[in-house]
Amino acid sequence: MKIIKSTLTQSLFLTVQLSPMKRYEQYAQEITDLIKAQTLRPGDRLPSVRQASAHRKISPSTVFEAYYLLEARGLVQARPRSGYYVNALTQPTQAEPHTALPSQQSTPVVISDLVFEVLGSTRNLDVVPLGSAFPSPTLFPLDKLARSLTPAMRKLAPSRMVEDLTLGNDRLRRQIGLRYVVEGAAVEVDEIVITHGAMEALNLCLQVVTQPGDVVAVESPTFYSALQALERLNLRAVEVATHPRDGVDLDSLAEVLQRHPVKACWFMPNFQNPLGSLMPDHRKQALVELLATHEVPLIEDDVYGELYFGLRRPLPAKVYDRHGLVMHCSSFSKCLAPGYRVGWVAAGRFAQQVQRLKLMTTLATAIPSQLAISDYLQRGGYERHLRQLRQILATQQALALRLIAQHFPKSTRVTRPEGGYFLWLELPPQVDTLQLHRLALSQRISLAPGHMFSADQRFSHCLRLNYGHPGDDRFEEALKTVGLLACRLCEETGLGDARHPHLPPQYMSVPHTTT
Amino acid sequence: MKIIKSTLTQSLFLTVQLSPMKRYEQYAQEITDLIKAQTLRPGDRLPSVRQASAHRKISPSTVFEAYYLLEARGLVQARPRSGYYVNALTQPTQAEPHTALPSQQSTPVVISDLVFEVLGSTRNLDVVPLGSAFPSPTLFPLDKLARSLTPAMRKLAPSRMVEDLTLGNDRLRRQIGLRYVVEGAAVEVDEIVITHGAMEALNLCLQVVTQPGDVVAVESPTFYSALQALERLNLRAVEVATHPRDGVDLDSLAEVLQRHPVKACWFMPNFQNPLGSLMPDHRKQALVELLATHEVPLIEDDVYGELYFGLRRPLPAKVYDRHGLVMHCSSFSKCLAPGYRVGWVAAGRFAQQVQRLKLMTTLATAIPSQLAISDYLQRGGYERHLRQLRQILATQQALALRLIAQHFPKSTRVTRPEGGYFLWLELPPQVDTLQLHRLALSQRISLAPGHMFSADQRFSHCLRLNYGHPGDDRFEEALKTVGLLACRLCEETGLGDARHPHLPPQYMSVPHTTT
Repeated sequence: MKIIKSTLTQSLFLTVQLSPMKRYEQYAQEITDLIKAQTLRPGDRLPSVRQASAHRKISPSTVFEAYYLLEARGLVQARPRSGYYVNALTQPTQAEPHTALPSQQSTPVVISDLVFEVLGSTRNLDVVPLGSAFPSPTLFPLDKLARSLTPAMRKLAPSRMVEDLTLGNDRLRRQIGLRYVVEGAAVEVDEIVITHGAMEALNLCLQVVTQPGDVVAVESPTFYSALQALERLNLRAVEVATHPRDGVDLDSLAEVLQRHPVKACWFMPNFQNPLGSLMPDHRKQALVELLATHEVPLIEDDVYGELYFGLRRPLPAKVYDRHGLVMHCSSFSKCLAPGYRVGWVAAGRFAQQVQRLKLMTTLATAIPSQLAISDYLQRGGYERHLRQLRQILATQQALALRLIAQHFPKSTRVTRPEGGYFLWLELPPQVDTLQLHRLALSQRISLAPGHMFSADQRFSHCLRLNYGHPGDDRFEEALKTVGLLACRLCEETGLGDARHPHLPPQYMSVPHTTT
Repeated sequence: MKIIKSTLTQSLFLTVQLSPMKRYEQYAQEITDLIKAQTLRPGDRLPSVRQASAHRKISPSTVFEAYYLLEARGLVQARPRSGYYVNALTQPTQAEPHTALPSQQSTPVVISDLVFEVLGSTRNLDVVPLGSAFPSPTLFPLDKLARSLTPAMRKLAPSRMVEDLTLGNDRLRRQIGLRYVVEGAAVEVDEIVITHGAMEALNLCLQVVTQPGDVVAVESPTFYSALQALERLNLRAVEVATHPRDGVDLDSLAEVLQRHPVKACWFMPNFQNPLGSLMPDHRKQALVELLATHEVPLIEDDVYGELYFGLRRPLPAKVYDRHGLVMHCSSFSKCLAPGYRVGWVAAGRFAQQVQRLKLMTTLATAIPSQLAISDYLQRGGYERHLRQLRQILATQQALALRLIAQHFPKSTRVTRPEGGYFLWLELPPQVDTLQLHRLALSQRISLAPGHMFSADQRFSHCLRLNYGHPGDDRFEEALKTVGLLACRLCEETGLGDARHPHLPPQYMSVPHTTT
């Protein structure tokens, strides 16, 4: 209950309007606590639905919802005609990756060629897209969205084609504003600018707060698009040590802020790409406060925040912003409408500058896309879609972890993110993952080698792996092949790590955030 | 026939695939020549449809089409139950503006605040948008486009949501490529990148060929978005003298190229914003050749090219490009689908760089918008829509010119562009058009003062006037009011220019391009 308590405490200060936990969530949390405390152990059977319902005086459907949630989180599994059983989670088979120690020097960035090479390979439909940045488009209600397009545009008065040009469609901005209210962030609708996806939002923010030559702090490893943006704008990157579970290391950041004239931070506190790390709320708060003392703006990339496997959406760091220094960027591309290119930024004190820059660079965001999403949100069904999506991704993660445990070199380390659709793998140091990517590509499998995620070569034995393509029946075979190729690379170096005992299939737990 | 002949001659060298003139176009051209030669004079009646049909052995509908075209070009007018009569065009009532002589110094640019002030005022629907950059959205087949959206998206395989991300939708790019073939430009489909409107295309091109501090040549006066882009990227502008009818002065440009290390030119050869000037084809060719000798890329902004009032679309300068140095940017925003944000660039040798930069800044262009336009083009009707649109705009221009002749200070000079929806007015030098804009705004009328179109103050007595709102019944009254305010400003300075004899309403001719 720690996470929840600390959230509630913060909410007193921040007027966070958290809706109270639902019954099934409470019951699921109690069982989670029992599993953590090892009162319930792997293989134990949960109370039957009838027992639990009678005993706890809750409806059978509430019990079902709770078990369903626990299953989605990988804590229990259903056995047909038998009931729900606790999964093995005492010790995960594989350790999590190390926290890399960046050089703390600011460096110019040159990674684009590699990124384009790798991304180019993921667009071929013949290739299994383990290296892709996108989840499968089949995961989204594309048909429902398409049905919204024509009626929404036909309802629009032609004059709005001009009016909506600047900030974006008014109703959509209010709908986004409402979601901030629910999350507890004090965001004014007027500071929200609709953009062509989060990518445009992030780039606008970066340009607004920097000049060529400036130093920008990023995570390590970091999302290659952040590095590309720095490269393009002639900015210097200083990488901050980032824990694979808890995100940016605040001591390291404090040191960086002392040593460098940092003009902005570009961080992803929720399900960071590529690590999947999730900053605990109190660390988000400390981050925002630390940056405020240095008057450094935070460009918060929060595109994966909705894809959580836990009980509720992790808060954006923006919730803790009292000085308008946090520019919170997100989009619908990863959770609802890929290809529609609708994102936004709540840009705090920089809102007008962002808006003007947008007007000068792409003028306005496509109106059909905005209206279709607004219409979809209005009609309801978004929350239900998100619940399904989260469960599918959680299940896929469990599958991917099991396959990695079975087929990858023994000393492979791997993250177990609490959301999103990426795993980050640390292979034995002798494995060059760019070589692995090229070997895999000859087998029609793409990978995202660690080289893409840093301005230096510290992650050349690491790998980002996309498990967000559940409909793709080539996925299992592809993971086995990559594991085999990695083992072979190990063997060639003669270090003997390659032979990996074939572990029995098993679920692995999603690790918990330490608070 | 001069224009046509020179085009055909060029086509021999350039394999321009011009479709042969249609019958009605030939007949209209013959009458145009007779009017120019003063064989037919103002007030003369054209042969009746029956006479002409019998005499020339062409169908009555062909004669009708020819007269219809001549009327759209302002050369003749129909009188009910009487026939078609030649308009007065011996001497236009008002002279055309002077060619301004820029300083030839390169200067940093600071105009954004003013531009935002003025543009902000045009978004209020209560204000008559004479200062707007956009034509009325009621001019476009918005309902037809909207009807395309849902079916087009439902037909799309989800996998294409990923495939289409980079360059844009394949079919749309081929459709655009086909239009280049018709115009005679040797453009490969692979060099076409779909963008969020021409604005993004232009900005991407500019970034690809410049570094901060570089010098870029622009027209004088020039489109304020070009100036804003330079300002944003810390580039220096050198303005090149631009003739209000014939566009960029090539001698001035040659001199500029000698004196400055120009890294790019951003020009609008077709219906330049704000002048409406149209470079004759042989000057476009000379421009491209001059720039090629200096290895200077041309960023060609051609968003108004389809809005011609003459017989055929003016060629893009890109037609003459043999070195891949011309980046031809255009969009559907001004001629078909405002608010859809679909533009493109055919970027020649810079195509891959543009594509990569696009991928890094906004990732991809909204797919629903692309598909709706592609679907609309496929179904046909675009040419018919364009013909109607051109005729409406030509008629509106004639109305605006008549009102200006009646109500503006006597010595007002005004352009008579052969396309687009802007007039450029040169008022007596004592009139400050920013003051005029603010006075007009208190009467709920917006204007675009000359200050917005140059990095210095040479155009502070000039004005861009948008006549592209034919449905707006406030238009006539607004023009009268602005004329009255301008006269009053003249009177206050005591120069006596203000009292303007009330001329009888009359059509004024569209001037011809000297070749």
